[in-house]
Amino acid sequence: MTQASIITIGDELLIGQVIDTNSAWMAQQLNKAGIRVVRRVAVADVWDEIWSALDEEQKQADIILITGGLGPTADDITKPLLCRYFGGHMVIHEEAKQNVLNIFNRLKRPMIERNLKQAEVPDNCTVLLNKRGTAPGMLFNKDGKVFVSLPGVPHEMMGLMEDDVIPALLIQFQFPSIIHKTLLTAGVGESFLAELIIDFETALPAHIKLAYLPNYGMVRLRLSATGFNKPAVENEIEQLFEDLQLLVKDYLVTNTDEPMQNVVGKLLSAKEKTMCTAESCTGGYIAHLLTSIPGASKFYDGSIVSYSYQAKEDLLQVDKTLLELKGAVSEEIVIQMAKGALQNIKSDFVIAVSGIMGPDGGLPDKPVGTVWIAVGNKEDILTQKLSFRFNRQRNIELTATNALNLLRKFILTGA
Amino acid sequence: MTQASIITIGDELLIGQVIDTNSAWMAQQLNKAGIRVVRRVAVADVWDEIWSALDEEQKQADIILITGGLGPTADDITKPLLCRYFGGHMVIHEEAKQNVLNIFNRLKRPMIERNLKQAEVPDNCTVLLNKRGTAPGMLFNKDGKVFVSLPGVPHEMMGLMEDDVIPALLIQFQFPSIIHKTLLTAGVGESFLAELIIDFETALPAHIKLAYLPNYGMVRLRLSATGFNKPAVENEIEQLFEDLQLLVKDYLVTNTDEPMQNVVGKLLSAKEKTMCTAESCTGGYIAHLLTSIPGASKFYDGSIVSYSYQAKEDLLQVDKTLLELKGAVSEEIVIQMAKGALQNIKSDFVIAVSGIMGPDGGLPDKPVGTVWIAVGNKEDILTQKLSFRFNRQRNIELTATNALNLLRKFILTGA
Repeated sequence: MTQASIITIGDELLIGQVIDTNSAWMAQQLNKAGIRVVRRVAVADVWDEIWSALDEEQKQADIILITGGLGPTADDITKPLLCRYFGGHMVIHEEAKQNVLNIFNRLKRPMIERNLKQAEVPDNCTVLLNKRGTAPGMLFNKDGKVFVSLPGVPHEMMGLMEDDVIPALLIQFQFPSIIHKTLLTAGVGESFLAELIIDFETALPAHIKLAYLPNYGMVRLRLSATGFNKPAVENEIEQLFEDLQLLVKDYLVTNTDEPMQNVVGKLLSAKEKTMCTAESCTGGYIAHLLTSIPGASKFYDGSIVSYSYQAKEDLLQVDKTLLELKGAVSEEIVIQMAKGALQNIKSDFVIAVSGIMGPDGGLPDKPVGTVWIAVGNKEDILTQKLSFRFNRQRNIELTATNALNLLRKFILTGA
Repeated sequence: MTQASIITIGDELLIGQVIDTNSAWMAQQLNKAGIRVVRRVAVADVWDEIWSALDEEQKQADIILITGGLGPTADDITKPLLCRYFGGHMVIHEEAKQNVLNIFNRLKRPMIERNLKQAEVPDNCTVLLNKRGTAPGMLFNKDGKVFVSLPGVPHEMMGLMEDDVIPALLIQFQFPSIIHKTLLTAGVGESFLAELIIDFETALPAHIKLAYLPNYGMVRLRLSATGFNKPAVENEIEQLFEDLQLLVKDYLVTNTDEPMQNVVGKLLSAKEKTMCTAESCTGGYIAHLLTSIPGASKFYDGSIVSYSYQAKEDLLQVDKTLLELKGAVSEEIVIQMAKGALQNIKSDFVIAVSGIMGPDGGLPDKPVGTVWIAVGNKEDILTQKLSFRFNRQRNIELTATNALNLLRKFILTGA
């Protein structure tokens, strides 16, 4: 099977200043095309370290994809290094030069000599024209291996991968099909799940793998099958995936690989219903998750993010006396928030949350991580109290996912 | 200088199903402690590939940190592999066993044999007790090199790093100081910036590096200095950082390494003012950015996420006739949204945004990526029209950052 390795270049990756989202995306695309990614390596903008990564990765992979290090500034040494590594000379590439000129023309920004340097490329590579930026991609062939260098700016890299790199690789290599099937469970631990499906897992043939992916207190199960006969592989995994769903049916959230908010969105769309949110502690994060889905306006009306006490009273008509008596993080208030949102936004369903996300703000009877959730409709409100013990960001994420899951259950059973 | 390498284990990293945030966080912590991370490698849950990564990484690094692959399920093979690699035998660790029992006791979940397996460790490692989960960390010494294996669950890994790993490394090695100074610029391209500071950059001594980090259409500049005499290094970089700030002063947003929302939050807190938001296209993302800051309630009151036309009318008193005449994405409507939010939420400052984030919803005169922003206070509203040409997620992020930057400028100059 054809194997690939991804090298990402940049000091910022090694001091942890940025999170490497590029290589995850690239791995997805390669995988979809039937190429197995065996390693991902991040190295600094240091000549010897990039050089030895190139030496090393071609031992294990047939395709080596490189991102980063192609900017116009002095800390970017990748292009001259690749030129030397593959024994070429730098030349001006006319189309790439025209591309740089066009971009500066369109942006109406002053162009300097340095920008034109972007159009210089080694003469022994295939140039991949970058429609979205000034740094062209470069494809080198050596001893039957393919090396591709791409800019590190995500949307530029993505455009080049889709338009040029994947099509070029599909011509040069013959790939098997890799098919993944993922389901999401909630309310059950990884070990318990493993026990439940132990016979199923043991009986899996060698070309089919099962993985457990814990995720915000839920567990995803992923089956992956590989083979050159695509219809046969599809049939086989389809059958196994059905068996797996039956085994975990009591905990199954969805048999698709998508996040909780998409499951809720589809459920609402299918019923032609809409929802709204009233958020305190999650501060708009639930709204953000839902509106990240293209076409969210079909099922989502809006949110009132009532961060202050005053906003809770003014925007959600929460009772001031009750607020002072019970505190913002209480069952009574979260119910009033839910009702207030339904009244003001006029949706079919609602989620309301109030909690203490930390690191400060904890009280003796309400420590950091205490959360009240209310979900429901005009007829009925369901509440839940949760306690988390993580950092602020994770507490926010877990509150959002749990609230969405509670609404999902409410829609399925209670409405 | 002591060098470290981070190995992350898991098929999910190589098919791009999850983004590796662990190693970025680990790199930050190691860096702060004066340890240079030279490589980060991700490998699959495959025996030979993990084994060869261990062989490979110790050639370049003194410290090898490993995360992932320690779960109780069959796809996790890291622990037996490490036992074999370092020539040990598996034994039950009594304290780790007690920890597993306590956790299941506290969670009131049924415990099975598989869970107790988590307390088995190689007899030749130092066990790092995991207070947050069932999988203990393990520290191995071999030929003067240190290998540490940690669970992949982020908060468990983080707890072990802070409580055990970093302190243990500080005892065993002597590290130099690494000091980073980062500033953020806006409204200027990377190449232009490079030209502006070319003399400064050329004159930098070898132990001080400058990096350009493009970020949402803005550029961060980072100076990094390394040395064993901490006060001397601090003095030196402090002086250079002042020079750098002067050189880029026309574009400087902040001389700290923090995101735009923190800059706005601090500005408001210093003035004892508050703000609110009225969000359409960003769907709560600006609210989420602001409320991700601990203690955000000091300067942030809340948001009205008016996703539907109806919500714009009901919650922000946007004029229905004008809405139908001009469309939701227009200067007139975004001004009304800003005024509506100020009136309802009663903050000192406001941000309102309306736009088309894609992939659908574009119109001939308002293509996908068209955004109107309004910022201001009771006296004055400032608007800006922007056009992005990216995917939905990036359009949302860029809109949020630009809106926050516009409010920042308004507070500094207009109020």
